[in-house]
Amino acid sequence: MDLIESLQWRYATKKMTGEKVPQDKIDYILEAIRLSPSSSGLQPYEILVITNEELKEKIKPIAYGQGQITDASHILVFAAWDKYTVERINTSFARSNAERGLPDSATDAYRTRLIGLMTNQTPEQNFAHTAKQSAIALGIAMVAAADQQVDATPMEGFDALALDELLGLASKGLKSTAILTLGYRDEANDWLAKLKKVRTPKELLYTHFN
Amino acid sequence: MDLIESLQWRYATKKMTGEKVPQDKIDYILEAIRLSPSSSGLQPYEILVITNEELKEKIKPIAYGQGQITDASHILVFAAWDKYTVERINTSFARSNAERGLPDSATDAYRTRLIGLMTNQTPEQNFAHTAKQSAIALGIAMVAAADQQVDATPMEGFDALALDELLGLASKGLKSTAILTLGYRDEANDWLAKLKKVRTPKELLYTHFN
Repeated sequence: MDLIESLQWRYATKKMTGEKVPQDKIDYILEAIRLSPSSSGLQPYEILVITNEELKEKIKPIAYGQGQITDASHILVFAAWDKYTVERINTSFARSNAERGLPDSATDAYRTRLIGLMTNQTPEQNFAHTAKQSAIALGIAMVAAADQQVDATPMEGFDALALDELLGLASKGLKSTAILTLGYRDEANDWLAKLKKVRTPKELLYTHFN
Repeated sequence: MDLIESLQWRYATKKMTGEKVPQDKIDYILEAIRLSPSSSGLQPYEILVITNEELKEKIKPIAYGQGQITDASHILVFAAWDKYTVERINTSFARSNAERGLPDSATDAYRTRLIGLMTNQTPEQNFAHTAKQSAIALGIAMVAAADQQVDATPMEGFDALALDELLGLASKGLKSTAILTLGYRDEANDWLAKLKKVRTPKELLYTHFN
């Protein structure tokens, strides 16, 4: 399948079978996430990969009882940095420069400007920005899953504070932004599987300036 | 190239050649954006597709002189809904139900709950959410471009208010969230083309709960 066919094949699966996704497919999806672009290359998020059944049972009520939490093979929790800090930005630039064999002075001007910009924002503005970067990775994760014929359900419908508490995210300076369940569709028992995929018509979505 | 190879091939191109991207490749990228998932399927954004040279010249200073604006073949401006409204949500559900042959009553409970949730938020919270949905589409657009061997540069470094003003977005209830330039890398003259792609190591990006 090409990318367009993958996007047409996928849908937000409402009922999964419980079948396990092979490790090589999981690794493929995780590598796609890792390669996702982000603003200034900061990748201001972490991903929690959950297969532990007890933990999934605890997450289920936090996600308002959605069955995919326990019927999925793997759950990915996208957790964005709660805010930018000088240390986080410096760490990212130092790693990048080291891997590229560049002196830190090569990026000092850009890095200093970025720190000024980000630390002048409120934590809420910072988090809106880091959450947006995690959404880029979420989009790419969904494409990667479809490419591997793995079903995926993106979820925003969960109690983020409760999930952050359960997973100890606050102490790591993280806040959950999305859950992505990975597994296989139970087509016979999924009401959404039979419904047509609907998208905004292109004449409403696009305006051309030629 | 598979998806992982596409992600490794792409980079935020800093210098483009000016060569035009064929229409079929543009159409492919636009269709991938149109098929992108979004929260409740609302696709709360529009995309401006700009090839007009005069308009590109006007955008360039708004994007702080970045040369890709005029060296790109096409510029996509991602513009998210400034807020959710009852009308916007109703229009989306009505279209979806009509295409699926469902009565509006089939989604009334969900739609009513969603309207309550979204209209109780501040416009800033709404926009943080719509901007996040546009970031999912941006991520998928970058994958689609790479898949077609088209270079793409995502940009947040522009004066969003000035761009909104130039493109008349406020009167459409839209706010720009990102620019994506599409074109071809000028490899010899692009300082970034030679640098190693650096990403967060997987042991720092992922935490496993087995």
